[in-house]
Formats: sequence, structure tokens, C-alpha cells
Amino acid sequence: MYNRIKESFDNQGLMKTFNAQLISVEKGAVRISCHFFEGLTQQHGFFHAGVATSIVDSACGYAALTMMEDNSEVLTVEFKVNFMKPANTDKLVAIGKVLQHGKTLTVCEGYVYDSSEMKLISKMTATMIRIKKMD
Amino acid sequence: MYNRIKESFDNQGLMKTFNAQLISVEKGAVRISCHFFEGLTQQHGFFHAGVATSIVDSACGYAALTMMEDNSEVLTVEFKVNFMKPANTDKLVAIGKVLQHGKTLTVCEGYVYDSSEMKLISKMTATMIRIKKMD
Amino acid sequence: MYNRIKESFDNQGLMKTFNAQLISVEKGAVRISCHFFEGLTQQHGFFHAGVATSIVDSACGYAALTMMEDNSEVLTVEFKVNFMKPANTDKLVAIGKVLQHGKTLTVCEGYVYDSSEMKLISKMTATMIRIKKMD
Amino acid sequence: MYNRIKESFDNQGLMKTFNAQLISVEKGAVRISCHFFEGLTQQHGFFHAGVATSIVDSACGYAALTMMEDNSEVLTVEFKVNFMKPANTDKLVAIGKVLQHGKTLTVCEGYVYDSSEMKLISKMTATMIRIKKMD
Repeated sequence: MYNRIKESFDNQGLMKTFNAQLISVEKGAVRISCHFFEGLTQQHGFFHAGVATSIVDSACGYAALTMMEDNSEVLTVEFKVNFMKPANTDKLVAIGKVLQHGKTLTVCEGYVYDSSEMKLISKMTATMIRIKKMD
Repeated sequence: MYNRIKESFDNQGLMKTFNAQLISVEKGAVRISCHFFEGLTQQHGFFHAGVATSIVDSACGYAALTMMEDNSEVLTVEFKVNFMKPANTDKLVAIGKVLQHGKTLTVCEGYVYDSSEMKLISKMTATMIRIKKMD
Repeated sequence: MYNRIKESFDNQGLMKTFNAQLISVEKGAVRISCHFFEGLTQQHGFFHAGVATSIVDSACGYAALTMMEDNSEVLTVEFKVNFMKPANTDKLVAIGKVLQHGKTLTVCEGYVYDSSEMKLISKMTATMIRIKKMD
Repeated sequence: MYNRIKESFDNQGLMKTFNAQLISVEKGAVRISCHFFEGLTQQHGFFHAGVATSIVDSACGYAALTMMEDNSEVLTVEFKVNFMKPANTDKLVAIGKVLQHGKTLTVCEGYVYDSSEMKLISKMTATMIRIKKMD
């Protein structure tokens, strides 16, 4: 399971640009982290909301994928994110978890923490759709 | 107004990393575009949802800012995005528009189009909060 | 088309409880209204957010249904609502519109106005899923 | 705390119409339930999504209120709900919980279960705003 997701993760140019790391893959839960650098900031010098959102979207998508058959791919239908604390940390840790898995749609919850994993920076709810892999 | 927002935009490291362009600033409406390159992709080689989300979040935030007094800054409280079409285009065009402006909170609608500006790729609704600029 | 939707609307016990009216049905757009009475209030005596949400959810669902084949039914996958103005009016007018229609999923936008239809009280974005009618 | 919220709850005409019950009030968590009757249904004879949404919105609002000073009132800024299972049960149990409490804004998570409290029917994330009570 890790290998299937690691391969897909390595094909995401954006994750390379962010220098993001796939930390762990379990059934129904995926963890991705991203260290701070200047190129990821908003105008106040903290992580841009878009960075937190990108990595937690990927974490939720892959969490959904861990629940599906081998010939599946996943697309984001929609997500909603609440930003609760300023992202002034040297590392973001994003965790995607499956809340409800269905044949077509999977609902995930995503959490973005600071490097201590004590401060919840933002919270996502995402709807993912399964599509059949095109060979 | 353009200058105030251009200055803030230029301080966003992420917009530089994306090589995104601030196209236009009107009262209540801001437009940002972003050309395709490998470093912005998801695993199928199209624009990552996080890129579309980042630029339309910035467009919505700045659209909100155009409605506010000079000593204001804006933070994203939350947003929700629906992804409607694959982002297989050579350029994303994001438009943020103010739907409802209040003293504390401003609600914006964001649209991400392909380079033809005919295909609606994703749609955002965002809640922004005004904060007083710290000098 | 009107008859198919009117029949379904008349089967909604909640719409009867609210004394809500199906005003119009066009391809991709449905309008439902609801007059004020004491039994629909929140603690300040205005329409409860849940009433506005219920009728605009129904309007969006039926708008989606107008785009589908005859043997279809529609379920709400998720929605998001922003509440922008107090609902102190003697009538709510909800309008559901299809933004993007797909084979499985349809994205709708919903608007709730006061009786003058000038004041936008709340704004919904909803994802609807097509299911095959069970006979 | 219970009395303050019970009094407000009793002023909600809609909760009376639904014959909803305020079950419990703790700091940061409020529980409301609602028994099934014909007047609460959608077209398939189950609870309407609007009923689940109304009671969990109230539960989230009151959960936020338990964190605030005595002279406070709470308004819903926005919410997002995912509908995960059909609401074919004889009772809905809604639980609102505070996720993040701030001076102006409070983020809540809402859960709607069936009567067994084992099946998660829908999940809300809501943003609430504190306003000063008008005497």
C-alpha cells in the first residue's frame, strides 16, 4: 500500500516544489509534512494557507485511496477548510483520515498541525470520488 | 489601491514560487493568473488543486481588502472549493469577487478558469476577516 | 417537468410543516418560498437558519433533478451555507441553480432572499448525486 | 449554564415545531435530539436533511455559547454539512462541540447520529460569531 501511494506522491510536481515528505501510510490515514522556506509564505512571512491546504488535500486523497481496490484513482470533489491559528511554525504536519467510505464517494477529515503536533492550524473536510484507473 | 495590493502580493513567497501574476485590481474584484509548469502538477500531470486554491484564495483576500480602510489587513477564516473540471490547461485564471462586505467579515466568491476563461475549473466561497494592520 | 417535481415536493412532510410553496421550475433553476410564522423562528424571533437551509437545499436538489433523465432521483452529498444578513422578513424566497452538471455529480448554487428579493440573506453551494429511481 | 441555554432554546419556535429536546449542556458540548414524525420528512419518508441541519446548527451555536461571557449571543456565520448515511431512524441525536474558541469567532464540529448513536448520519463544521447581547 505504501509503495502504491509513494509512487503517486513522487509524481506530484507540487509536492516536490514544496519539498513535502510522505511520512506514513496506514489503512484510512496518511501523513504528509512540509518544512518552512521563504518560497511558501504569504505576505506576513508565515506558511501560505494554500500550502497547508495542498498537503492536507493530498493526505486526504491518499487516505481515501487506501480504502479502495488496486485499480482505483481518486479525485477531490470538494473540500472546506477552517483556518484557526496562524501557521508560524517551521514545519506543517498534515494528517488525512477517512470518516466515511462508500463505493463512489469517500468523506475525509484533514488536520494540519504545527511542528509540535500540538497546535491545530487548520481543519479540512473533503469529499473524494473514486475513478477507475486508466491504463 | 493597485499599489497597496501589488506590494502585498510581491511579499508572498508562494506567489513567486508559482510565478503567479497579479493581473488586475478593481474595487471588489481581483484577478490573478498562473502559467503551467511541471512543478505545479498533481500525479496526472495537470495543475494540482492546491495551486488553483492558493491563487483564488489570494484573489478573494485581496478583493476583500479593496473594500476596507487603509490600515486593514485580511485573513482567511475559511473557504470551500468545488472542483468541477480537470485543470488541464496551460494557464489558470483566478477571479475573486466580494459578495457581501461587513465591518468584520467579508464573504467572497472565487472562480478559477482555464486559459480561455470559458471553462470553470473550480469555484470557491470564502469568509475573510479584517484585522488592523500592525505597524 | 413541473409535475414530476411538484409530486415529489408534495411528498416532503417538512415542506408541508413549513407551508412552503413550489413557485417555479425551469431547466436548471427552481424557486421555493416560505412565509413567516412563529413556528419557524430562532431565539430572536427571525427565521431560523435551518428553515432557509431546508428550502434552498430542496430548491438545489430539484434544480439538479431538472437536468437528469426521468428515472433519476437526487440526494444531497454536502452543502455549505454562508449567512450574510438577518432573516427578518415576512417571506423567504429560495432559488436553486445548476452551476455544473455531470453524469454522477451536479454542483448547484442556492440563494435565499427576503420578500423583496433584493436582500441576499444566505448563499449555498451544494453537491448533489444522481441515483437511479427504485420502483 | 443549562438554564441560560434552556431559556434561549425554548424561545426557538422551530425547535418547538420539531418537538426537539435539549438533552445536555456541558462546557463546549451540547446535545439535542428530535423524534421522527411525518412532518419532518423528505420525499422518501426519512428525516429531511434540513431537520438534521437545524438541530445540529442549534447544538453547535449553544456549544459555542457555553464558552462565552454572560452578555454574549451567538450567530452562525457559515456551516458545511456532509450527508453520509440515510436518516432512516426514529430519532436524530445531534451533538455540537467546540473545536477552537476565539474572542470573536468559534469553530464547532457537529455530529448527527441515529437513535442508536452508532451510525453517523451527517457531519457539520460551523463558524460562529459572538455578538454582545442587546438589552
